[in-house]
Amino acid sequence: MSTLPSDDTDPVEVLSVEECWSLLRGEEFARLAYRLVDEVHLVPLNYVVEGDGLLIRTASGNKLLAAALHSDVALEIDWHDDTSAWSVVARGRLRRLEEHEHHRLDGLPQQPWVPTLKYDVVELVPSVVTGRRFRLERHAGSTA
Amino acid sequence: MSTLPSDDTDPVEVLSVEECWSLLRGEEFARLAYRLVDEVHLVPLNYVVEGDGLLIRTASGNKLLAAALHSDVALEIDWHDDTSAWSVVARGRLRRLEEHEHHRLDGLPQQPWVPTLKYDVVELVPSVVTGRRFRLERHAGSTA
Repeated sequence: MSTLPSDDTDPVEVLSVEECWSLLRGEEFARLAYRLVDEVHLVPLNYVVEGDGLLIRTASGNKLLAAALHSDVALEIDWHDDTSAWSVVARGRLRRLEEHEHHRLDGLPQQPWVPTLKYDVVELVPSVVTGRRFRLERHAGSTA
Repeated sequence: MSTLPSDDTDPVEVLSVEECWSLLRGEEFARLAYRLVDEVHLVPLNYVVEGDGLLIRTASGNKLLAAALHSDVALEIDWHDDTSAWSVVARGRLRRLEEHEHHRLDGLPQQPWVPTLKYDVVELVPSVVTGRRFRLERHAGSTA
């Protein structure tokens, strides 16, 4: 692929902010890490980019995500094949969208993965977005 | 696939600990979430199961992972297709393996993804392993 690092001596390439957003717009499945007292939690979810935010639809009353509203979170997407990998992390705080803001989901591709009657929508407006691309040196004869 | 939830009314199925370990043994790519002061960090990495631990080879002097040695961490693997998804999270603390323990990697499939001269090996012996499988209700006409 054309996105391999151009410098053969450096296996890690830092992605530009524009590249990170482009990758975020191209995915819908991510993991959200957040802190609850001293514990770190990690949950898979789907999201959609709208404006400068990431919109996440969650089952109403999701206790874990409610807890995430009170601390900094990190949302990560990644991809890999046998020769390269990339990872993008968006950091910031979550806020719950008011009912009158739910129209921001209209026309967007995000649908709930898990069917549930009632949803809340939370938004992550990242304060920092970072990404890296790795050139991989995989083992021959993978046991995967 | 045969692993879809058997109860058609519940879109989320809790996996047994045995299933979680089986899934952990079948993967090699994960994300590690850890806390650094008030910030949550999330990094992709590869690992291998050895005994009751997850061994992770990291570039020597990796500052981020060194920080992770001092707090609880969560390692996550996941998978999805159009009809189902699963996620497994292993929680615990990391410890750095001593040189004389590095033989535990011998014969295991893990090789470094990113070529680097010197490595440290850290082990996560999970105190808790949890997993869930989701029945997905994807949107028709995906824009992916």
